Order: sequence, then C-alpha cells, then structure tokens
Amino acid sequence: MKIAVVGLGYWGPNLVRNFQALPDVKRVMGIDKDETRLVKAKQRFPDLETSACLDDALRDDDVVAVALATPVSSHYPLGKKVLESGKHLWVEKPFTAKVSEAESLIELAERKGLKIIVDHTFIYTGAVRKMKEIVDSGELGEVYYFDSVRVNLGLFQHDVNVVWDLAPHDLSIMDHLLRERPKSVSAVGSCHVGNDLENVAYLTVFFENNLIAHFHVNWLAPVKIRKILIGGSKSMIVFDDMENSEKVKIYDKGVEVKTKEGVYEMLVQYRTGDMRSPKLDQTEALSIATAHFLDCVKHNKRPITDGISGLNVVRILEAAEKSIKQNGKEIKLHYHD
Amino acid sequence: MKIAVVGLGYWGPNLVRNFQALPDVKRVMGIDKDETRLVKAKQRFPDLETSACLDDALRDDDVVAVALATPVSSHYPLGKKVLESGKHLWVEKPFTAKVSEAESLIELAERKGLKIIVDHTFIYTGAVRKMKEIVDSGELGEVYYFDSVRVNLGLFQHDVNVVWDLAPHDLSIMDHLLRERPKSVSAVGSCHVGNDLENVAYLTVFFENNLIAHFHVNWLAPVKIRKILIGGSKSMIVFDDMENSEKVKIYDKGVEVKTKEGVYEMLVQYRTGDMRSPKLDQTEALSIATAHFLDCVKHNKRPITDGISGLNVVRILEAAEKSIKQNGKEIKLHYHD
Amino acid sequence: MKIAVVGLGYWGPNLVRNFQALPDVKRVMGIDKDETRLVKAKQRFPDLETSACLDDALRDDDVVAVALATPVSSHYPLGKKVLESGKHLWVEKPFTAKVSEAESLIELAERKGLKIIVDHTFIYTGAVRKMKEIVDSGELGEVYYFDSVRVNLGLFQHDVNVVWDLAPHDLSIMDHLLRERPKSVSAVGSCHVGNDLENVAYLTVFFENNLIAHFHVNWLAPVKIRKILIGGSKSMIVFDDMENSEKVKIYDKGVEVKTKEGVYEMLVQYRTGDMRSPKLDQTEALSIATAHFLDCVKHNKRPITDGISGLNVVRILEAAEKSIKQNGKEIKLHYHD
Amino acid sequence: MKIAVVGLGYWGPNLVRNFQALPDVKRVMGIDKDETRLVKAKQRFPDLETSACLDDALRDDDVVAVALATPVSSHYPLGKKVLESGKHLWVEKPFTAKVSEAESLIELAERKGLKIIVDHTFIYTGAVRKMKEIVDSGELGEVYYFDSVRVNLGLFQHDVNVVWDLAPHDLSIMDHLLRERPKSVSAVGSCHVGNDLENVAYLTVFFENNLIAHFHVNWLAPVKIRKILIGGSKSMIVFDDMENSEKVKIYDKGVEVKTKEGVYEMLVQYRTGDMRSPKLDQTEALSIATAHFLDCVKHNKRPITDGISGLNVVRILEAAEKSIKQNGKEIKLHYHD
Repeated sequence: MKIAVVGLGYWGPNLVRNFQALPDVKRVMGIDKDETRLVKAKQRFPDLETSACLDDALRDDDVVAVALATPVSSHYPLGKKVLESGKHLWVEKPFTAKVSEAESLIELAERKGLKIIVDHTFIYTGAVRKMKEIVDSGELGEVYYFDSVRVNLGLFQHDVNVVWDLAPHDLSIMDHLLRERPKSVSAVGSCHVGNDLENVAYLTVFFENNLIAHFHVNWLAPVKIRKILIGGSKSMIVFDDMENSEKVKIYDKGVEVKTKEGVYEMLVQYRTGDMRSPKLDQTEALSIATAHFLDCVKHNKRPITDGISGLNVVRILEAAEKSIKQNGKEIKLHYHD
Repeated sequence: MKIAVVGLGYWGPNLVRNFQALPDVKRVMGIDKDETRLVKAKQRFPDLETSACLDDALRDDDVVAVALATPVSSHYPLGKKVLESGKHLWVEKPFTAKVSEAESLIELAERKGLKIIVDHTFIYTGAVRKMKEIVDSGELGEVYYFDSVRVNLGLFQHDVNVVWDLAPHDLSIMDHLLRERPKSVSAVGSCHVGNDLENVAYLTVFFENNLIAHFHVNWLAPVKIRKILIGGSKSMIVFDDMENSEKVKIYDKGVEVKTKEGVYEMLVQYRTGDMRSPKLDQTEALSIATAHFLDCVKHNKRPITDGISGLNVVRILEAAEKSIKQNGKEIKLHYHD
Repeated sequence: MKIAVVGLGYWGPNLVRNFQALPDVKRVMGIDKDETRLVKAKQRFPDLETSACLDDALRDDDVVAVALATPVSSHYPLGKKVLESGKHLWVEKPFTAKVSEAESLIELAERKGLKIIVDHTFIYTGAVRKMKEIVDSGELGEVYYFDSVRVNLGLFQHDVNVVWDLAPHDLSIMDHLLRERPKSVSAVGSCHVGNDLENVAYLTVFFENNLIAHFHVNWLAPVKIRKILIGGSKSMIVFDDMENSEKVKIYDKGVEVKTKEGVYEMLVQYRTGDMRSPKLDQTEALSIATAHFLDCVKHNKRPITDGISGLNVVRILEAAEKSIKQNGKEIKLHYHD
Repeated sequence: MKIAVVGLGYWGPNLVRNFQALPDVKRVMGIDKDETRLVKAKQRFPDLETSACLDDALRDDDVVAVALATPVSSHYPLGKKVLESGKHLWVEKPFTAKVSEAESLIELAERKGLKIIVDHTFIYTGAVRKMKEIVDSGELGEVYYFDSVRVNLGLFQHDVNVVWDLAPHDLSIMDHLLRERPKSVSAVGSCHVGNDLENVAYLTVFFENNLIAHFHVNWLAPVKIRKILIGGSKSMIVFDDMENSEKVKIYDKGVEVKTKEGVYEMLVQYRTGDMRSPKLDQTEALSIATAHFLDCVKHNKRPITDGISGLNVVRILEAAEKSIKQNGKEIKLHYHD
C-alpha cells in the first residue's frame, strides 16, 4: 500500500522517513507545489515518488492514505478532497482553523467509513504514555490542576499566533491525560513584534469540580522551558521535557488539612513520601504514531488522536482567540451532544 | 528613640531583632495580646519592653514609630490609631484589605506629616536592587512582559487566599521595577482544599503599549518554584530565587524580525550575546528596610516602599479578587488623579 | 548529669545547644581559655556554666562526659586527661593527629570502661542513614567504587591541609557504608596559597576485589560541589548534598556485558530501570548524634562512630599525607590484629 | 584534490561527510576491508569512491591526504605507509599506541615535508576555542589546577581501557589550554567487568610551580558528567559540556589570604565579582578541523593539533598505564630535547 505526504517543508520529510520505514508501506509519494522542495526530497529519499499535484495521489488506487503537512488554513479544503476521494486522512496539528471545519471533516469521515488521525505527536512519546499510565491508575487521587509552560526564543509563524503554534501540544496532552470535558476558557495575550499575532499568551481552561488547567506559551523567552505540573490529592507529577533524563517525576505528596495555632492558620500537611522517575521508552514518537495510524486503517480501529481529540483542541483554541480579544472574558464551550 | 512592634507571632520577632540592631534605636517595645508570645519574646530578647496593649506604645512619647505585624484585616484600624497618635507607621504586606483603607491611611499620614512604609521586603534584597539598576539603565530596551511564578507546597492562610498571601511579593517587585501604571486586571483561580479560599490562581495585569504582566501563585505545587522572567527588546532577565548563587541572569538576547522561506514564516533572529550573572549584595533585606525606614523618618524622606506602592499592590489584589469571581473578566483599575 | 564542652569557637556552641536540649542533661559546662568567648557563650546560653580551666570539669563528679571541640593537635593530650579522670569522651573529627594517638586513647577507654565517640556528624544525617539502609540491603549488588567530590571556595585552616580538613567527612561515610578494610592508599596534592599546606588533593583507597574509593578535596574551587557516586553491579547511588531536596538518588542501572559488531567492542548493556529518590529524615544530625552518645553512655552501648571508626579515618589520613609527599606512592595500611 | 578515509565504522562516515562538504575537495575515497560497510557508505554517500584496499588510495596521485579512522593499534603501521607514499596524514585520537611510534611518525613526516593532524576534535569546539582565548588573555592569573571528570554508563572498548578511550579528550584540552610541559604522572584504576581493562581510572599530571592536573574517567557511572574546572589566582573557569547552553562559565573569583581570629585560621578572601557565560560558536567542530587540515596542507602551516600534540597525549597515556600497574607510583616523563 502507498501513502502520500503533502507538503515537504519542515515536517513533511519526517513523515516520509517514518512511513518509508513501515513494512506495510510499499511506496511513499511526496507532493509539493514547490519544485525545489521536490528535488531536495528526491535527493534525500531516492525511492520517493514525487508530484506537484495532489490529484495524482487521489487518482492513484494504491494510495490508501494522505498525510497533510501543510499550513492549517489548508487542512479543511485539502482534507475534504482527501476524504471525498475515499482515502484515510493524516493531518498535522492543529486539526483545522475552525471548529465547524473539524466537525464537518469528522462527519464526512464517519459517513465514508474512513479514519482521521491528528498528529498530536507528543501523545506518542514515552513520557506522555507513561504519564497516561500513572493518571489512569488513579495514583494521583482527585486531579486538582494541570499547569503547562512552553516558552523559548522561537520561530514566529506568519499565519498563526503563539497560541495556535505552541498550545496544541499541551492542550492535546491535557485532553489525553484528563479525558474531561472543559466548560469554558479565559485567555489573555500580547503582541510585541511586527505583525498583529500574539507572541505571548496565557490560557485558562475551566472544568467541573474546580479542576483548572493553565497554559503559558511564549515565543520571546530568554530560556527554553517545557514543563507540566499535574497536582492531585494523593500525588503530583512534574514533566520537564528539557531534562536529558528523568523527564517525568512522580511526587508522593498528599494534602491533609490540619489547623495550626488554633484558628490562626491551616497547615497543608504534606504527607511527602519518595519521589520516583520511571524509565521511559525512547522510541521516536512519530514512528509509533505512523505505525498506529496504519494499524487503525488496517484493522478498523479508532486512532488515539482521532478527529474528536483534534476537535477538542481546536474548540479551545477558537475560544481562546475570542477571549484574548476581550482581555480574558470567559468563553463557554459548546458541544453538539 | 523607641520603636513598637505589634504582633509577635511569626514575623514580628524578625522586626524586633532588626530594629534592636539599629544604633539609633534605644529601645524596642513588643506588643501582643497573647501572653505566651510576650513571654517567649522576652526570653529571646531580654532587653525587650513588652505590653499587651497598643495604647501603652501610643501614649509613650519616646515611641516614634509603630510596626504592625498583625493580620491584614487589622492594618487599617490599628494603622489609623497609630497615625492619629502622631507616630510613623510600618505595615506588613499587604498594606490593607481594601483600596479605600489604603487611600485613607495615606491621606491621614500626609495630613499629619508622617511616614508610612509597607514591608515589601523583597524590594530590599540584593537581587531586586540589582534588577532595578539594570531595568533603570535601559539595558532591556522596551520591556515587553513580566512573568512570575511563585509556587510550592505551603502554608494555607485561614483568612486570605493564595493571591493575597503570595502575589504581593511579585506585584511589589513588578511595581518597583516597571514603575508603570496598570490599566486593568484579569484573574482566575480555584479552590481545592477545605475553606473557600483559592489555593491556586493566575493574575494578568495589562498596561499601555502591550506591556503585560502575569503571576502564577500556588499553595499546592510538588516543587518549589520562585522565578521571574522579564522580556525586553534588547535583553532579558531571569531571576531564579531558588538558585543558591547566580539568582539573577541577564541574557543579551535581542529580537530582530527576519523573513525565512519567503512569505512562509518570520524568524525571530535572536541576536544572542553573552549571559552574565552579577554579584549580589548578601545583606539581610529586612535590616536594610528597617534602616531605610528610620532614615526616612529622621531626614523626612519618602520611603521606597511607601503607602503609594502599598496601594498599587492592593489595587491589583482587589481587582484580581473581583475578576476571579467572574472567571477572568477584565476589571479596570481606577486612579484618583 | 552534666556535660562539659571544651572549645567555644565555631563548633562548640552547636554542641552546647544540642546537649542542653537533651532531657537527661541537667547542666552544660562551657570551657575555653579565651575569656571573650566565655562571655559571648554566656550571653547566648544564660544557663551555661563556664570556666577557663578543663580541670574544673574533670574534678566535677556530676560531669559524666567531656566534648572536645578544640584543634586536632590537642585531641590526644586533652582526651587522655578526660579518660584518665573517668569521664566519657566526645571528640570532634578528625579523631587524632596520629594513628598511635588514636590507638592509645581507644586502649585507655577500654581499660577504663569508658565510651569514645568521634563526631563524624554526617553519619547521623538522614541522607547517610538512608544510604546505609540501601547498601546494607544488598540492593547495589557487588560494590565497585566509591567516588567523592567535596570542593568549594572555603576556609583555609592554619594547622591542617585540605585533606585533614575535608576528607574526614567522606572517609567516615565510606567507612560506615562499605565496612571494608582498606589495603593501601595513594594520594597527590598541591599547595598554591601562603603556607605549605595542600589546598587541593586527591586520595585513592584500595580494597580487596578491585573495590576502589577516590576522594577529591579542594579549598579553591569556583563552585561548591558535594557529591558521592557509589557504583554497584546491580544499582548505583548518587548523593548530591547541594540539592535542596532529592539529595539521594538510586539508579536501577545494572551492567551486562554484550558484544557488539563482533569482536570490535563490548557494550555495557545498561539494564536501566526507574530512578527513585527516597524521602529523608530532616532531623538535625548533631541532635541525633548527641542523643546517641548519651544513650551509649547510659546503656553501655558501642557508639556507631566509636574510636575504631575514628581510627579508620586517621589511618587513611596519615597514609595519604605520606603518599602526597611522594607524589602518589602507594602506602600500605597496617592493622594490629 | 582527493581525500581517502580508511575505516568506515562509527567515526569514518563523519569524516567522509565533512571532507565532502569542503569546496577544495573534488572527491572522497572510502576504504574498508568490510564489504558491508562499503555498501552502507555508498548508499549514504552516492558520490563516494570506495575500495577494500588502502594501496588503491596510495597509488592514486589525486589523493593528497589519508585519514585513519581505524583502531589505535593500526595507526602506526598504516600511518607509516601513508607518509612513505607521500600523502599527508589525518589520524584519529589517540595518535598512536606507543610514544616511540608517535616519535617516528613525526620524524618521518618532517623528513618528507608532510603534515600530520591528530583528530582531537574537542580542540575545535566553540567551547574550547573560547576557553583558549580566555586562558591566553591571562584573565585567570596564575593557573593553579586543571580538574576534569568524564564519566557515564558507556561503551566498553575491547582493545583499550577507559584511560585510552576517554582521557585523550581531556588531556588534549589540557595540553592545548595550558601549553605547559608535564614532569610526571601518577595514576590508579580498577577493572570490574569481563576483560582486564580498567573501566574506572584517575590520572594526575604534575607540572612545575605546583600546577596540577587531574582526570577522572569512568565507563560505569549512573549519570553522565563532562566537567572541567580550571582554577587560577584571578579567576576560574567551569566547563560543563552537559549544559544545553551556558557550557562555559567564567567566575571572577580571586584569592586573597587574610587571617581570621588571629593565628587560628586564614580566610581565603574570595574577591567574588560577576560570573559570565560567553556566547559560543555552534559550528560543528569536525568541519572546522577538516577545513583547518586542508588549509595547513595547502599553505604549509602547522596544524593546531599536530603530531607533537598527539605525542604529548600519548606520552601521558603510556606513563599512566605504567603507573596504574604500580597503584599510583610516580612515572617521570622524558623528552628528547
């Protein structure tokens, strides 16, 4: 079977490399309007079939799936074509530029009996898979908050702000780990350089039962920070992606309320036990994701990061954008079910 | 001359120790309704004069100033008595529980020609004094953002939430370093333990010219983080108070916008030069603050952390509390001038 | 019962404070030739009995034990007097300046049925007690090496070199954890400032079965490092005393030899599992040590850090000094049994 | 002009890639007895000329230089053939297995007017080039010591011990930075796994004027440490190669001797000023080294890491091996001039 990869800029070649490595994949086709990119890709991947036109892939019966590594604005129109031509769809994050677009692609795929996978790559890393294990085990007790920081001196996207660029990583991790339905969003941000796109932003996501999630994304930080804190009643997780090893630490820290000096204050009795840092699988996340996608296609399974999880992220991004324009005004999230 | 310290719980004794160490101070009087605290204080400070009643201090002509180390709710009524009796006033942070209270104490002190100092101790640390030097030198260029994180597994106050407990430290540092007038505040928070007081909260403060400040305070974090990032157009500061040494780092990182791959993206060209970590004065902040207070009293100078700076912090705290109740709604700040 | 503390310079007052805190101790007597030190001690400890003369303590029948916080050169003559007068002996580290002195004090104490405890304070810290547990459990498998680094920009002693000043800490930890008898010592060092005393030195201690221990001590390092690595066949320990928390980490890292690329190289297959950092007891080590000493005195038990463990350290120090003078020549260690 | 690379195992392909990238290099020839390696290399480098026999390269007049990426034992016999055939010589570190071999290759190259470069890659990193600048500027004052640690859980070489495997990196850095002639060596080590090759070792190198250098190399450490401390009278350097950024830090820490408490102790008055971490050039060290080699060949310059610097390292390695067998006995170093 054959896979087509559309967009051979920065990320596309990684998809080509990983799809080529899969035993089930006979051939990979690379598609890009930019001729020079096609040449470069051909040099790096001699076996790569190339074309400037998506239709060549859609007409090709051997092509079972098409991967879109193109700007988010193109995800809906191209994704629609892909699904209508009866091919399974791989889409880079974020899934789409609008909730409505995500919903119609999901609806279309269901009608056609096709799979959609959104490339929330982090979900397939050893670190997140280990955290998922821990959260699902109930070891954290009641989850109180999810706090994420993703900042560095980084690329400025021309077409999306820092929220659409960086937050999808952490929003998808939150959605995957907590599996809770958010009620509303409050977000703020600011723009300091060139265009009108925010380069620093802070998102808050509200849930039932006082569960709260917060995200700090920044393209203009002097140091690189990639850190997630998850606080629970029984224990807490720190995920520091900048650590060479020991990226995930689980703190056996529980909270017990106790009064001290009579009425004057309550003391959070931290029942602190050991900390442990579990060994993490080092397999490249993208190779796991690509293999998982083919497995879902072949055996008609639902991808872990399917259209719904892509939609969950876009729903928050869209609300965050509205909220930022109103300096933090709470925006309710709507669900059609 | 004599100084009276009201409230001999956790912080009061530090004030006694530092005031006693000042050459100008003949005597220190310790005041607390709690007899056992008076006895404990007497043991530790044999020379300490003690009394259960503030009036003893107010009646004493040798007493030139009174320091309040009592719960915030008492700052206004006690502060009013102190000023009316013609004594200078030292108040622990936060200055007062309400903006109106702060305003009337400031007005009263001015009418009486008395000094108010709010104990924003951090302002007197070697680290903040050094950062003030750097910011005032213009080395940062245009300041873009101020980002603060102050989290750990800590004491729960019975009478105030985490915002009133922890944020004053960072708000006072921001006010001192930026000397800008905030326009509005958006804040969110959540309460997970016992009472109805938020134990985690996020504050955003909006200024003119897209300057934005953000504060993360949390009583339920598994690790202790005390970090401030200040981003400027020419260089940036990282203040990590958990570092044993090298608490302040200045990154010669400037931002230049450059387009990459034609229209597809802009690259923040980080003109990165050296980093430096300046030597910091190790003198105890409180000893500098107490000496500064007496100096202002003797030579009729305006304290660095005077009533106005105390009010600036309370104004934000009050607005933050309103905003939290409305899940992030922007609250405008008002100024009477 | 009464305890006498001789030498009220830097460390003596800590002994006074901890002995006074013990319920069994009725009174503490402070002894120093230096009048000003006696006055200072009296101010800090109003209940302290003071004297300029050790004999006052030795004549006092209530005095059951005498603690020497005096320069190492005085440990033998003073210790001898103390034991001859029938009092139990507490000695600061290092035990004595010579092996022969240590041996004769041990012999004297045994003849008199008296206890000697050497103040290897580190042995009583939560970190070392936890490491002892782990090593004794056999979790490390066969112990391969013990590597210690203790460097910073520090005090220069006038009377001893950096080996006698810093190495006793780590040598006592090694002796306590490994409980192996060293065969020989090789050491090197150098002197850069003022006097003829080495300010940087490296010690190697050889054992049976290829077990090797190494110690780096330095008074002239720009950064403070306090780190111990213990390598075993099944797992390994890292003790970093500069960490605020997580001082002890146990790495489930085993060694399996496997050949790679045929004859060309062997790969140490690191069977790496989780890392864990156990919770450590925070009690002040010196309070545990003083209580342990009294317990041994009262119930005729052998102190954990008795004369023998003090002698084990002095034996290595003496050999190291010989070896340094010969640029690393191996010096055999002798035992009288 | 053409370059031949002998040995296409782990490191050889890096040489091929970097030589191919040089404009002056028309062609690169890859040589290996192992057919499969030749095939693999050909796949990765389509333009690569390949051969199983070195003589093909030596007979080829276009080949101006031959690079040996073969086991150290082969460096002498192959290097001799290369030089005798009139080609310039690139050798991987360590230069040779014996001092005598190094000396005769140097002598041969001089007689033939050919260049030898030893691939002490670290010398060409941005970090070491920056440290060289600093040391040469005299900023450190008198250099007191050089302390290096290079440990991790790593590859076991089948043919050399950890000293020959890891120490050449740090010995070459020391030789390059200090440019002092060592007097003697003392070394110790131990072997814990499989073969008789030491997997942990400690080297000391003695110089005039109390300058001392020490090296800790270990294949069996639970954590990866790559750290060099250089102590001087005026300032000190810490090079931590595990840092993502800020690998080199210069501490403005000087030493002034001052007596404290009269005769009782001297205090190292640390005149501590700022710390700075200079920006480092990120260019791949090997690309700089290969370009430097060709530049030396074309313009008849002396390579920075020429045969002499290779010999300086081998001289210490050979002495260290002798010393290890005698548990640290000092081995004098001999120079033929």
